[in-house]
Amino acid sequence: MTSNDSLAKLAATIESRKAANGGDPASSYVARLLHKGPDAFLKKIGEEAAEAIMAAKDAEYGGNTDVLKAKLVGEVADLWFHSLVALAHFDLGPADVIAELERREGTSGIEEKALRKVLARESEAP
Amino acid sequence: MTSNDSLAKLAATIESRKAANGGDPASSYVARLLHKGPDAFLKKIGEEAAEAIMAAKDAEYGGNTDVLKAKLVGEVADLWFHSLVALAHFDLGPADVIAELERREGTSGIEEKALRKVLARESEAP
Amino acid sequence: MTSNDSLAKLAATIESRKAANGGDPASSYVARLLHKGPDAFLKKIGEEAAEAIMAAKDAEYGGNTDVLKAKLVGEVADLWFHSLVALAHFDLGPADVIAELERREGTSGIEEKALRKVLARESEAP
Amino acid sequence: MTSNDSLAKLAATIESRKAANGGDPASSYVARLLHKGPDAFLKKIGEEAAEAIMAAKDAEYGGNTDVLKAKLVGEVADLWFHSLVALAHFDLGPADVIAELERREGTSGIEEKALRKVLARESEAP
Repeated sequence: MTSNDSLAKLAATIESRKAANGGDPASSYVARLLHKGPDAFLKKIGEEAAEAIMAAKDAEYGGNTDVLKAKLVGEVADLWFHSLVALAHFDLGPADVIAELERREGTSGIEEKALRKVLARESEAP
Repeated sequence: MTSNDSLAKLAATIESRKAANGGDPASSYVARLLHKGPDAFLKKIGEEAAEAIMAAKDAEYGGNTDVLKAKLVGEVADLWFHSLVALAHFDLGPADVIAELERREGTSGIEEKALRKVLARESEAP
Repeated sequence: MTSNDSLAKLAATIESRKAANGGDPASSYVARLLHKGPDAFLKKIGEEAAEAIMAAKDAEYGGNTDVLKAKLVGEVADLWFHSLVALAHFDLGPADVIAELERREGTSGIEEKALRKVLARESEAP
Repeated sequence: MTSNDSLAKLAATIESRKAANGGDPASSYVARLLHKGPDAFLKKIGEEAAEAIMAAKDAEYGGNTDVLKAKLVGEVADLWFHSLVALAHFDLGPADVIAELERREGTSGIEEKALRKVLARESEAP
C-alpha cells in the first residue's frame, strides 16, 4: 500500500468518526475530539508540537539511537494525526496539504515560499 | 502521482540539502536550517503549530471560507514541511511516520494509542 | 524596587506603545507588534514557548550551568514579555495575572485549579 | 501584598513541593510534576501557550468581554505558573526573570533585545 493510500485511508477513518457519520464520542477518541470542538484538537497540536521538540532534543543529546528515533517518529505521528483531525473538522484532508507542498515544489522549488517569507520579514523589520 | 511519491520526493529534496550532499546555506532555505542545527527547525515547529492553531480559529469564526481554508492548509503544510526537515536531520523520513500511523491503524485501530495514553493519564492522576 | 513595580513599569511602557498613545511602529518593536495585530504577538508566544522548552532541555543535558541557566531565564523573559504585549492588547496587565494566581493560592492552594482540571479530564475520558 | 511578594510566595510554595523538601507526588500537583521530571512540566508550557493563543483569538472575535478576558487571564496564569515550576526545577525563580526584564529595560529600553534579534535575523537571511 502506498502512503497516499495510508493517509487517505486514515483520513477516511477520521471522517467516519464525525457525528453526522455515526461517530460515537463514548467509544472513539477521534469522535470525542470532534464532538468537543476545535479547542480540544487544536490544544493537542500545541502539546504534540512540544513533545516532538522534546523528543528531538532527546535524540540530539542521546546519540540518535533506535529507541530515541522511534520516540521522535511517534511524536511526529501524533502531531500529524491531530493535524488530520483538525483538517477533517474544516472539511479538508491530507490531499490538500500534499497538493500545497507539491505546488510550492512545482512553481519555484520547495524553498520559494520560505524564502519569500524571510524576505518579507526583512523588508518590514524596524 | 501518489502522496507517497510526493512526500518521498520532498524528503529526497530535503536530503539533497544536507551539507554532506552539497547543500548550500547561502542559496537554500533548507540547507540553511540544517546548517544552523536542531534549534533552528525545532523552533519553526513551535511557530508553525501556533500559526496553524490561529488559522484554524480564523476559519472557525470566519465561516470556513475558501480563503480561510487555504490559509489553514498552508500553515499545516508549513508544519509538516518543518517536521520533515527535523526528521531528515535525524535520518528519518515521512515513510517512518506513515508506517507508525499504519501500525496503530493495523494493530487495534487508529485510536488505540490515544486511548492508551488517556487511560494512562487517568491512572497516574492524583 | 519590587517585582510588582517592575512588571507594572514594563506594562506601562508597553501601554505607551499603543498607537492611541503615540507609539510608532517605525521605531518601536512593541508598537510594531501591536500595530500588526494579534497574530504577530500570539505567534511569538508559540515561538518563545518552544525556545523556553529547548533551553530547558539544554540545561537538563548540559549540567544546568550558569550559561544555560541564563539562556533559560532569557527565554522565559521573552515568553512573559510577549504575554504582556498580548495582555495589553486586550486591556489587561500583569496585575490581572497575579491576582488570578493569588486567588488560586488563597482559595484552596495553588494546586486547586490544576487538580480540578486533572479530575475533570478523568471524568470525561472515554 | 505586592505582586513581588505574590510571585516570591508562589515560588516558595513550589520550592516546598520538591522531594528534597518533603513534597508528596500523591497529594500535590506540583510535587507530581517535579517528580515526573522536565518533560511533564515542559509539555504543559507548550499546551498552555496553545490555550493562551486560543483564548486570545476567542477574545479577538468575541468582543473582548469580561468572560473572555477572564479566560485569557486564566490561561496566561497557567502559562506563567508552569514556567515557574520549570524555573524551580533548574534552581531559578521569578526574581531571575524580572531581573532580566529590568536589565533589558535599564540598558537600552525593553525593545533592545527584540530589535537586536530582528536585526540579527536579517543579517543571516539568505
